[in-house]
Amino acid sequence: MPLVRIDVTKGRSPQALRELADVVQEVLEGVFAAPPHDRYQVVTEHPPGQVICEDTGLGLRRTDDLVLLQVTQQGRSAEQKKALYAALAQRLEERCGLAPSDLVVSVVASSPEDWSFGMGRAQFLEGDL
Amino acid sequence: MPLVRIDVTKGRSPQALRELADVVQEVLEGVFAAPPHDRYQVVTEHPPGQVICEDTGLGLRRTDDLVLLQVTQQGRSAEQKKALYAALAQRLEERCGLAPSDLVVSVVASSPEDWSFGMGRAQFLEGDL
Amino acid sequence: MPLVRIDVTKGRSPQALRELADVVQEVLEGVFAAPPHDRYQVVTEHPPGQVICEDTGLGLRRTDDLVLLQVTQQGRSAEQKKALYAALAQRLEERCGLAPSDLVVSVVASSPEDWSFGMGRAQFLEGDL
Repeated sequence: MPLVRIDVTKGRSPQALRELADVVQEVLEGVFAAPPHDRYQVVTEHPPGQVICEDTGLGLRRTDDLVLLQVTQQGRSAEQKKALYAALAQRLEERCGLAPSDLVVSVVASSPEDWSFGMGRAQFLEGDL
Repeated sequence: MPLVRIDVTKGRSPQALRELADVVQEVLEGVFAAPPHDRYQVVTEHPPGQVICEDTGLGLRRTDDLVLLQVTQQGRSAEQKKALYAALAQRLEERCGLAPSDLVVSVVASSPEDWSFGMGRAQFLEGDL
Repeated sequence: MPLVRIDVTKGRSPQALRELADVVQEVLEGVFAAPPHDRYQVVTEHPPGQVICEDTGLGLRRTDDLVLLQVTQQGRSAEQKKALYAALAQRLEERCGLAPSDLVVSVVASSPEDWSFGMGRAQFLEGDL
């Protein structure tokens, strides 16, 4: 159920974009309690200059490789979110060569009633999940 | 006030996209307490492979027709959300030929103070609405 | 930390788009308590007809210049949000010629634990910010 919007600047190959999305999903399953096949992602490539991320004074060097993730989910704790950020940074660096300084993550909360995965049903309310 | 992001894979005609957006709005007005002309939608068409939705093990068959809706709203109950999901699935199938297995909906909550519909005013706080 | 999605219909020059984004950021810093360099924006240009905003019966005239902002943030009060809407409308009119009737703003709340600005860290939780 996490729904993940992945916003990047154009420049990666289709294969590299897919690998990026795959690694994000592996991390969600590994440390963020997403069950198998609980994958909902929207990848959007933007023209140069339309993903604008500075650093809030943290001294981070941003490049055009920057990856902005917005994760809508429900039920995870602060500890799970910390684990998510750390694992994303580590795995995306290892697997995709993404600098940890080029990863920004925003999480948005929702409730069990806020999801329908298909068939017009609210699966968390109706006992399907 | 519901703000609806409609993400789809490229492939529909402009007319079919408009019909899709129209039907979503009709359902919001019919079962989700949206008043007339309370329509705020952003339609985004993505290249193949960039809207990635699996099925959380529910046994749903996803196709490139899949429609992902993210609805930011305030004040609706769980019952209203259940009615929304059911009506969207039914009406989009009847009117747009969308398989109910190809509809995913995520709802996000906000507060009355979180909206400005124009003129720099917070209409829900200032008595305009 | 406010993450701002800026959705517009195609038609502005790259310079005009940048100015629009710059003015939004200036307002966030001026009246919405964003510290210097706390800038996180995603600009998306859409084909005609894909940003659909009516007026909830408020009597507003919408044009293809319309700017839809969705601001994900944490910690601001209702008064700060009212000030944000008013300042955005005023400054975008002065600086970008945007009619106040063509500005729609949606704010979404989150928590300190919901942000990682880089390095895999939850900066608000870990004392970095």
